Amino acid sequence: MTVMLDLGSHFPTGLTVATLTLAGVLLLAAAARADTPYAAMRPVGFTDVRLEDGFWAPRIRNTIDAMIPHQLRMCEETGRIRNFEIVAGRAEGKHEGLFFNDSDVFKVLEGMAYCYALEPSPNLLAEMDRLIDTIAAAQQPDGYLNTHFTLVEPDKRWSNLADMHELYCAGTLIEAGVAHYDATGDRKLLDVALRFAECIWSVFGPGKRDGYCGHEEIELALVKLAETTGDGRWLALAQRMIDLRGQGHGAEYCQDHEPVREQDAIVGHAVRATYLFAAAADLAARSGDEGLVRAMDAVWEDTVSHKMYITGGIGPSASNEGFTGNYDLPNDTAYAETCAAIGLAFWGKRMTEFHGDARYADVVERALYNGFLSGVSLSGTRYFYVNPLASRGDHHREEWFYCACCPPNVLRVVPTIGGYMYGASGDGLWVNLYAASTASVRVGDTDVQVVQRTDYPWDGDIKVAVNPASAAEFEVRLRIPGWCEGATCEVNGASVDATAANDGYLHIRREWRRSDVVSLHLPMPVRRIEANPAVEADRGRVALMRGPIVYCLEGVDNGGVVRDICLPRENNLTATMRPGLLGGVVTITGHARCAPALGWQDDLYRPARDTADKTITAVPYYAWDNREPGEMTVWIPEAPGLAG
Amino acid sequence: MTVMLDLGSHFPTGLTVATLTLAGVLLLAAAARADTPYAAMRPVGFTDVRLEDGFWAPRIRNTIDAMIPHQLRMCEETGRIRNFEIVAGRAEGKHEGLFFNDSDVFKVLEGMAYCYALEPSPNLLAEMDRLIDTIAAAQQPDGYLNTHFTLVEPDKRWSNLADMHELYCAGTLIEAGVAHYDATGDRKLLDVALRFAECIWSVFGPGKRDGYCGHEEIELALVKLAETTGDGRWLALAQRMIDLRGQGHGAEYCQDHEPVREQDAIVGHAVRATYLFAAAADLAARSGDEGLVRAMDAVWEDTVSHKMYITGGIGPSASNEGFTGNYDLPNDTAYAETCAAIGLAFWGKRMTEFHGDARYADVVERALYNGFLSGVSLSGTRYFYVNPLASRGDHHREEWFYCACCPPNVLRVVPTIGGYMYGASGDGLWVNLYAASTASVRVGDTDVQVVQRTDYPWDGDIKVAVNPASAAEFEVRLRIPGWCEGATCEVNGASVDATAANDGYLHIRREWRRSDVVSLHLPMPVRRIEANPAVEADRGRVALMRGPIVYCLEGVDNGGVVRDICLPRENNLTATMRPGLLGGVVTITGHARCAPALGWQDDLYRPARDTADKTITAVPYYAWDNREPGEMTVWIPEAPGLAG
Repeated sequence: MTVMLDLGSHFPTGLTVATLTLAGVLLLAAAARADTPYAAMRPVGFTDVRLEDGFWAPRIRNTIDAMIPHQLRMCEETGRIRNFEIVAGRAEGKHEGLFFNDSDVFKVLEGMAYCYALEPSPNLLAEMDRLIDTIAAAQQPDGYLNTHFTLVEPDKRWSNLADMHELYCAGTLIEAGVAHYDATGDRKLLDVALRFAECIWSVFGPGKRDGYCGHEEIELALVKLAETTGDGRWLALAQRMIDLRGQGHGAEYCQDHEPVREQDAIVGHAVRATYLFAAAADLAARSGDEGLVRAMDAVWEDTVSHKMYITGGIGPSASNEGFTGNYDLPNDTAYAETCAAIGLAFWGKRMTEFHGDARYADVVERALYNGFLSGVSLSGTRYFYVNPLASRGDHHREEWFYCACCPPNVLRVVPTIGGYMYGASGDGLWVNLYAASTASVRVGDTDVQVVQRTDYPWDGDIKVAVNPASAAEFEVRLRIPGWCEGATCEVNGASVDATAANDGYLHIRREWRRSDVVSLHLPMPVRRIEANPAVEADRGRVALMRGPIVYCLEGVDNGGVVRDICLPRENNLTATMRPGLLGGVVTITGHARCAPALGWQDDLYRPARDTADKTITAVPYYAWDNREPGEMTVWIPEAPGLAG
Repeated sequence: MTVMLDLGSHFPTGLTVATLTLAGVLLLAAAARADTPYAAMRPVGFTDVRLEDGFWAPRIRNTIDAMIPHQLRMCEETGRIRNFEIVAGRAEGKHEGLFFNDSDVFKVLEGMAYCYALEPSPNLLAEMDRLIDTIAAAQQPDGYLNTHFTLVEPDKRWSNLADMHELYCAGTLIEAGVAHYDATGDRKLLDVALRFAECIWSVFGPGKRDGYCGHEEIELALVKLAETTGDGRWLALAQRMIDLRGQGHGAEYCQDHEPVREQDAIVGHAVRATYLFAAAADLAARSGDEGLVRAMDAVWEDTVSHKMYITGGIGPSASNEGFTGNYDLPNDTAYAETCAAIGLAFWGKRMTEFHGDARYADVVERALYNGFLSGVSLSGTRYFYVNPLASRGDHHREEWFYCACCPPNVLRVVPTIGGYMYGASGDGLWVNLYAASTASVRVGDTDVQVVQRTDYPWDGDIKVAVNPASAAEFEVRLRIPGWCEGATCEVNGASVDATAANDGYLHIRREWRRSDVVSLHLPMPVRRIEANPAVEADRGRVALMRGPIVYCLEGVDNGGVVRDICLPRENNLTATMRPGLLGGVVTITGHARCAPALGWQDDLYRPARDTADKTITAVPYYAWDNREPGEMTVWIPEAPGLAG
């Protein structure tokens, strides 16, 4: 017996879940849990949003044209793909590289699938097929799939969940399988993933061994698997792994120190922590689980109030790739792994959708435009693993890493940026991020085309055309960014009060008709930002921001030396669009002072000297280290002045 | 056959080395190496200098009256002394505490011996005797003495030199034995130490096993043993351990990564590094070893040019208790172990004596008055292990530590401060540090009484009476501190040019007669110091110094909040002697600005606001955390001003 199942509008148009087995049908009752009844909005998928802007669209183009070929080549050259071929008996040799290298291949494949969903091409399809064939051939008869364990220590399967990333790797396979299926309708990688998931279920399912991974990831992957298959077992398994976590009071490093529901501070490895709480938010959206909601809210507040760089980077410490104490945010030694900014964006997106509160989207925007995007060069082929906020000129992007989690993570985020922009509910259209684009959103029973025209993030003038298929009353909820003061708004040329509600959104309820246009103006002066004085590293300094963009001083624009620059108080800073620079950016120029660096030589301390005039240029932080190597700083000391 | 050996003037008056064995006599040829022919000066021992000042003398008083009883009690209560009693069969039980806890007892005993040398008392002698009896009873028949190995893992002796501090502990025993003998003329602890040294010689001597300790210390102890016994074997053993080090390219953590003579940067554990190079300087002074001189000079330059806090603290990182990269000097997370500042003072004292250059003494002064002295409370009974340069109010001295290296190290330094003040050579009297005191120095063939009258470090007026036993021509070399500008000098009321020579000393050559008086004036304005802009943590900030004293802002003097204080450029700071405060200190007061800390609550970032007036008081850094707990900072951001 087979049943055709259409899970409806939150699947890519035209795709339906294929035939289900009887077992699947019996689990249909659980499929309701793939909906998110406890969330304020449901996301609008990235395939329903076409970016037409000058900021993200070229990045997506570059991802397809340059990043994918580069990363495939890196996976080839580093043996990551050959590891599968060896297991499949198609190549000779030993396993090469780290024990979790499979995950990089899965993540590249996931990113390729997203790109294919945006822009199907026979070449990309063929490349994916070739990879999937190799991966599928490496799957063991019982569904197990891990080249390290199969080649290096076959008798150690599932023997060290805390350290060996086995379930983490499985999670990335599941995400890739779901992404590939969603993009192509082809089940073959999804089936590989499902076979592995069944294998995991047989070992770690309810009533079996209590187990969960030291590196969270599979939890959020299982939610996706549940959503795509409609099989509630995968939600149950994700829930089980989160429920088990911390019961034995393990290590803070992997958020295993206390039960998840009792956690109220972010600790340990930053990527792991964000993946965990992203999954918690997924589950809360489906079950309303009050314990998880309380924990994820408390941990979020701790993160953004005490432990987040102005760039949205998180996890200051290299020693644990993660968190330390409150307000410990050193700039030059900031670890701020690219994957951690991505994890914060994953989590923040889900928090936005769960709570319907713009301050979560503020953090997502901060991370995406700054601490995430700094992770990749303009060429798309060089990456930061570590994203410091100050450099002496010796920190540069690399084409790959021995531990290469970050590059493929960038690859799977860029094509999905459109998916961060909108949310929908029964009577609301939520605009979370701004960019020129055309989207299809279903609000209640109405299909609505939403067209944004703007030069955001360089300009705060945004026109949003709201085109319902037929006239309908609903609420458009426009996020007024936390950084913005003095927003104004017109609907069809008539002013409306642009004050945000407590949830941070400007609510406009009316009967919307085709060609209604909302004009939102978000003033974008250059802003001097100061950090809480508890942040030792930033005391007496300001950072420059404009709109969502964090700026930095780079040596190449400032005579080679930026460490000695200090900034006077008066507002003498000018923003200028420079189309030819760094792919087109707004720079900030102005008069500053400098403590002449000359004459220091080997002195470490000396009596303070007078400062001198200097003209400075600041560029977006995300774009630094794309020209000649040199010093960089985000936090600029204020120029010394007289007592008032 | 026995020979009486008088090693002469650099021994405490009235003491002679007791009878030597035949083997000792055969090694007399090597005894010459206990002299320091390659050093510019020989030190004047602390027993030849009586401090009569208001700064150090009360600290020595307190050490005798409070610190010794406190630390003895701690050693009792923590089982450190009982461990010896158990080995001796005088108590039941298991070894308690860390495997190197013996060293704390030995260091306490060493400090007690120094105090006894300054101020003999029957009680102190009896306390030492009691301890020594217990220690001696714990010595094994073959001379071995280590309570951990004897009680816990007797079959593991000498099996893990890199990690188990066995030779380190032996070194502290040797130093204690030498100190006790020098102070009392009683050989009994020296003999215990010698028996252990013979045991070590039998295992690690020339032609035997190549071995050296992961934690350097025994090397400098063996030099002292050679000097006191006249037995050159101990110099040879120290030399051998330094020669072997790094040949196997071990860990940077214990300076074992490359041969010592090839090292040119300070790396790894800070205390170990300084103890190593202090011993290297000892050996160089005796042998002129060019390779050691080159290495110790290069490593010193690296230390003071790139890796030293303004307080003389070194070793910024908790993870290795030591060094990281150049200019990595974070303030709030500074480790700057008290023992490391002590190690820097040990090393710098030897560098001063070897090179006869005042810039080494500058560093000794910096460390003693700041990063060392901060390690102990005014009460003498509470200690910092870690000496940060900024605190949110949660860092406080403790009465003891599980790993208690620092408190006994303070105990053995304070009574010997007088030994840092003077050097002597054939025709020169070197004045390295200033303090009211009376000293006996032998210059060439002339006994010279040197009397200093000054309120240093609070005042820069210093009168030095030079009273030779009979008129004699020699050079008085007065250190002009590196921090000082505009020094002036008179001899018997007549001005002399006070310009320092290239070696940093003001050289005054004349025939000195009883009651000649040199009047030195070192101006002590409040100084604003800036750090090399490569020090990320200090950019845009100044530290306040006056004379050799580094100042800090403490919450208790500044309305509870110091993190938001910023300092205008104009000179509005006033120094005031406050006899009743913190044992009598000069404070610095003035007008500053503050970025009001109120209103921050849980914000992490916000648009920069105006500053407001605030009156501030700074106190010496060494004296912080002696009143109510609160915030502290050394480096103060400069107040924002306008463009010039």
